[in-house]
Amino acid sequence: MKRILMSLFLAGMGISMSAQPGVFSVKEAGKSDGKILTMEETILGSHLNPRNRSLQWRPESSVLTFVSDKALVASQPSLGVELQLLTLDELNTLLGTSLQRFPHYTWVDADCIAVVQDKTYYRINLKDKSLVYSFVMPAGAENFTAAPKGDVFAFTRRNNLFYCDKNGNVFAITEDKDTNIVNGQSVSRNEFGIAGGIFWSADGKKLAYYRKDESQVATFPLLDINTRTGSLKNIKYPMAGMPSENIQLVVYDLSMQSHKTLKVNDFGREQYLTNVTWSPDQKSLFVQVLNRDQKEMHLNQYDASTGKFVKTILTETHDKYVEPQDPIVFLKGNPDQFLYRTDNRDGYRNLYLCDLNGKVERLTKVDADVEFVGQDAKAIYYTSAEVSPVENHLFRQELRSGRRTRLTPDEGWHQVRMSGDCNYFLDSYSNLNVPRVIDLRSTDAKFHTNLLTASDPLEDYAMCEIDLGVVKSADGAYDNYYRLIKPLDFDPEKKYPVIVYVYGGPHSQMVKNTWCAELRRWEMYMAQRGYLVYVQDNRGTSNRGADFEKAIHGQCGQAEMADQMEGIKLLQSLPYVDAERIGVHGWSYGGFMTISLITNYPEIFKVAVAGGPVIDWKWYEVMYGERYMDSPHRNPEGYEKVSLLNKAKDLKGKLLICQGAVDNVVLWEHSLSFIRQCIINNVQVDYFPYPCAEHNVLGKDRIHLMDKVSLYFEDYL
Amino acid sequence: MKRILMSLFLAGMGISMSAQPGVFSVKEAGKSDGKILTMEETILGSHLNPRNRSLQWRPESSVLTFVSDKALVASQPSLGVELQLLTLDELNTLLGTSLQRFPHYTWVDADCIAVVQDKTYYRINLKDKSLVYSFVMPAGAENFTAAPKGDVFAFTRRNNLFYCDKNGNVFAITEDKDTNIVNGQSVSRNEFGIAGGIFWSADGKKLAYYRKDESQVATFPLLDINTRTGSLKNIKYPMAGMPSENIQLVVYDLSMQSHKTLKVNDFGREQYLTNVTWSPDQKSLFVQVLNRDQKEMHLNQYDASTGKFVKTILTETHDKYVEPQDPIVFLKGNPDQFLYRTDNRDGYRNLYLCDLNGKVERLTKVDADVEFVGQDAKAIYYTSAEVSPVENHLFRQELRSGRRTRLTPDEGWHQVRMSGDCNYFLDSYSNLNVPRVIDLRSTDAKFHTNLLTASDPLEDYAMCEIDLGVVKSADGAYDNYYRLIKPLDFDPEKKYPVIVYVYGGPHSQMVKNTWCAELRRWEMYMAQRGYLVYVQDNRGTSNRGADFEKAIHGQCGQAEMADQMEGIKLLQSLPYVDAERIGVHGWSYGGFMTISLITNYPEIFKVAVAGGPVIDWKWYEVMYGERYMDSPHRNPEGYEKVSLLNKAKDLKGKLLICQGAVDNVVLWEHSLSFIRQCIINNVQVDYFPYPCAEHNVLGKDRIHLMDKVSLYFEDYL
Repeated sequence: MKRILMSLFLAGMGISMSAQPGVFSVKEAGKSDGKILTMEETILGSHLNPRNRSLQWRPESSVLTFVSDKALVASQPSLGVELQLLTLDELNTLLGTSLQRFPHYTWVDADCIAVVQDKTYYRINLKDKSLVYSFVMPAGAENFTAAPKGDVFAFTRRNNLFYCDKNGNVFAITEDKDTNIVNGQSVSRNEFGIAGGIFWSADGKKLAYYRKDESQVATFPLLDINTRTGSLKNIKYPMAGMPSENIQLVVYDLSMQSHKTLKVNDFGREQYLTNVTWSPDQKSLFVQVLNRDQKEMHLNQYDASTGKFVKTILTETHDKYVEPQDPIVFLKGNPDQFLYRTDNRDGYRNLYLCDLNGKVERLTKVDADVEFVGQDAKAIYYTSAEVSPVENHLFRQELRSGRRTRLTPDEGWHQVRMSGDCNYFLDSYSNLNVPRVIDLRSTDAKFHTNLLTASDPLEDYAMCEIDLGVVKSADGAYDNYYRLIKPLDFDPEKKYPVIVYVYGGPHSQMVKNTWCAELRRWEMYMAQRGYLVYVQDNRGTSNRGADFEKAIHGQCGQAEMADQMEGIKLLQSLPYVDAERIGVHGWSYGGFMTISLITNYPEIFKVAVAGGPVIDWKWYEVMYGERYMDSPHRNPEGYEKVSLLNKAKDLKGKLLICQGAVDNVVLWEHSLSFIRQCIINNVQVDYFPYPCAEHNVLGKDRIHLMDKVSLYFEDYL
Repeated sequence: MKRILMSLFLAGMGISMSAQPGVFSVKEAGKSDGKILTMEETILGSHLNPRNRSLQWRPESSVLTFVSDKALVASQPSLGVELQLLTLDELNTLLGTSLQRFPHYTWVDADCIAVVQDKTYYRINLKDKSLVYSFVMPAGAENFTAAPKGDVFAFTRRNNLFYCDKNGNVFAITEDKDTNIVNGQSVSRNEFGIAGGIFWSADGKKLAYYRKDESQVATFPLLDINTRTGSLKNIKYPMAGMPSENIQLVVYDLSMQSHKTLKVNDFGREQYLTNVTWSPDQKSLFVQVLNRDQKEMHLNQYDASTGKFVKTILTETHDKYVEPQDPIVFLKGNPDQFLYRTDNRDGYRNLYLCDLNGKVERLTKVDADVEFVGQDAKAIYYTSAEVSPVENHLFRQELRSGRRTRLTPDEGWHQVRMSGDCNYFLDSYSNLNVPRVIDLRSTDAKFHTNLLTASDPLEDYAMCEIDLGVVKSADGAYDNYYRLIKPLDFDPEKKYPVIVYVYGGPHSQMVKNTWCAELRRWEMYMAQRGYLVYVQDNRGTSNRGADFEKAIHGQCGQAEMADQMEGIKLLQSLPYVDAERIGVHGWSYGGFMTISLITNYPEIFKVAVAGGPVIDWKWYEVMYGERYMDSPHRNPEGYEKVSLLNKAKDLKGKLLICQGAVDNVVLWEHSLSFIRQCIINNVQVDYFPYPCAEHNVLGKDRIHLMDKVSLYFEDYL
């Protein structure tokens, strides 16, 4: 892995180095007599986020659009041009509405936007300021998906798939009575990059959709206490090692009214059909087919008219797992070549240029995870972690020479959106000391202008010092990044209790060089009340390459804990840390980590609060669970080793577990089974369910929850 | 109500009067350096109960039998005779077993006992020491019920009723495939004295059984976390105001194989059929039929051969409720007369002599609740509260003259078992200072001998002082009894925290003049750790007459709280009570009381622990709920007033709620809905579920529970 030169880095920032080991950036404390966060602000205070602007690119152009002063405005800053596309009054006249604010809009082509108001879909031509058409969206429609160009719209209702035309006429695509068959919805519990079940061809004449058969999947009941006598909602939940979904992909031809099921015979009934892509000519479909074990993936081509298998273009295998997450992207102007992203070839998620004959050429040659953001005739554009794992920058790489240029000069984490013609990009970034800046930049680096420089939203608050630093992983191979927020009126001569906030699971990155380094406001809430709060990433998390991520395979929690304990050693070495008062808190995977830590290191952690924790991976779902833990049949020792059921007896400190009682992600069985083990072993543990909350306890429930969490630390740490 | 003369009472006991108001009996503290109870002893320490003896009357005789030294022994103490009926060796030879201890036995007639071992039923004749017969009990048999004389046995399996003969041959009585139809089992959730669903005629040739149709009753799911993927057990739970069970009584004639359903048409489909009694000639059945509203009861006679209604013998009505609880008892030697017990005529549960023409004559004429225990040619025998509500004594009342004689001379609570001929009775009693005495006495008062005088099982423990006293009810009309246990090494100059343990619901009596005054060992556990623990009965509880009991009608919790608060005033007046540290704890109805108290009197109660609490009576079952609260339709204001959902916002102190998560008495919905209200109102509350426990958390779970309860008071009171 490429390393950043710390000294350069520090020099560049012009800030003083803290006494703390590993610290490379510091956000200094604000006024100590500033305001103190209430819990309501902590949870709901979106006004305490840095200001943002809602900007869109008009398709295939360098024109930005935004809502300003009751009008939709187009702007071309490089030319200094700005004009009103449509006023709110004009919109209200067109729609026959009396809206007070210009509503959310979506560009559908270079001239038209779509607006949805009061369950009515409107298409508006901005060129002649006309209403192209409107119709009332069908009642009960979910997953409403417009075809890319054609004026047709697919949607699901209960377990079936439908489409409607621009007059609102509805046509059934499927008519399954058996509710175990679900059409047109997302499958595989949204893993493998799957986010929906409807895939329109570009011309809107065909669509591919998922057909999921859940008849073999076990049900789990969620209790609804809001009905007169209490009632049940049964959910289908495929558990690791148990029978799972059967997925098919079907192509529906609207004019022929024909269904063609893709003939996918690679790996039997429980294979995964992921990352569905239409060919530019709309004659083929490409699917990344993964076996149930998640150790072998075939990128296959199918004939969209017949469903017949054409060929396997490439194959990936790995003895831990292969995880396809990205659809292939056909090169503009060259329909035989496509971009493909994998971390299975060179250790990092890089881009590859492939052709339909299976030729694969590495395009980005960096030891860092890369993300594709755009392509024009000469170059591709990607963001990556190559500057630093805690920074995200945009690069342009010329297709012919391979020469690459960094296009985001400023320190920090950049989110970019390319204009359709790739001549410009919006560069929205922040870093530890910068709340948010939005610049417009040209990709040739000749033009840039500032569109927003947000002020510090916490200016009036008693902001505490935040350190951003690194600590070595337990195997010595990596730097893990951390942030540490210090108590209000921090006095290095005093001793303070510490709360470690942990997540630690795959696909996460808790620490970045962003505004306050990704600080969750609750950390500031606790720091204002006298606590140090420490957050650190560990092996298994994202954006650090395949070896780092896969280090946890088969024994979730082990490498993660080892790395977190390196952070604990660092904390213990700090003179102002009261090592007798270390607490830990986390949710979901972080709940699993929290209980793992307090039961494996009972002498270190005095108090813990775990939320929605995984207790035993055999109760977690197939797609995620088997990827990281393999199946319970093949890896019984791994499951046994990391199961917290076996650890309940080792609990010594104070542990509070919270969970949403209608959690459909981590089932209630997990935490109930853990406390059952505590009871059997006569070990005291505390518990609190949120009766109407799902996995993530939100809204008012969350205020109550975080009050409870905070009071628990106040009472016992 | 008759009052006891306190001074007489106290003089009789020869103990010094405490400074505390109302105290009339004191158990002095034991050695202060004695043993301290562990929680395991507290919950499971049955060896800390006073010693007992298992004695049975041989039917229709004055012969006592018991197991001694590996033999079944018969004894006639009045004659000084004792002989071995059967040795263990003889039993083992008869049964072909190798039992190490003489097993549990049941007398079936004057010569025979029945023994069940290893699912085999044995009938043994003790006269000739022979095995009459044996058979293996049918697999899956529940509610196994032997006919009184005949060698036939009814039983249920799943939802159907069967019988078998002495060879173990099984015959189906019902064959309902619809599991909503349940035959031969208890109905009406065991209210109205109902404890089973099989009623044999005396000759064993017919049986009456309940046929329950639950198709209209709502189901409620209980979550079983012990299966691989979690599973459900649905229970039928009829909620107040909702559709309920339909009950029928059917007479089955074994030889005819005929079913005759009693034609009960008094009150429609949801009437209650209670207290089923066969006439002595086995030709009639008597049923106390109650309407769904529980305000009108008909004692009806039916023809057992045809099921036809014969006549209504008597009727009871009450604007609050009528609660039949006792089958009628036909007078020996006079099949046209029967004893009938009701509190609906003279304010107390007294005995009435009735005939089949509806003539009703009051037999016991005391202002106290009475319980029938036996009858011979000249007299009836009953126990009652007429000496004091906290004492239970046996009386003989001559049928002709009405003259009554108290047969239990000693102070305290007497449990009596009459010999079959009513010449003798076993008198087992205790009082505050007497652990247990068992005397054998003749009903003519001429003979008595002591069979057991148990020693103090807590002799080696640091027993704390217990006071037994009275406090006026809030309406000034009654004395309510209380016990107060004082802390170890009690020093009246110091101030101590108090925990009020409360139940307070109908059919209960928490305070009696028994060994330690009904102390639960946990009270001593807490007293040994520095707490005063106070327990008091209130209006609504049992054994005090109809007005006292029905004072709560329509507004459960209100009169009870008012009375408990009189106890609190008493506590506040005591110099050694720290009035800033008052806690309260209770389970079930007591859980309802606990939350009612801490939310209605937030300034009084600092800490509360409620278990399995009723939160809103609309979620409690029809039979009990509608009796005390009427229906939600007729009494919406009452339901609203006492609903704790409305009180969540008033919670100020620390409240922990515990519940068994598979509670089928008070559904989980109750406590979950309460904490939901706390969350909505942003009020902190604590919670702990016992995932595999039912309503009463037992065994190991209970040790964990009471540790949790104790620690909660330790942490916060």
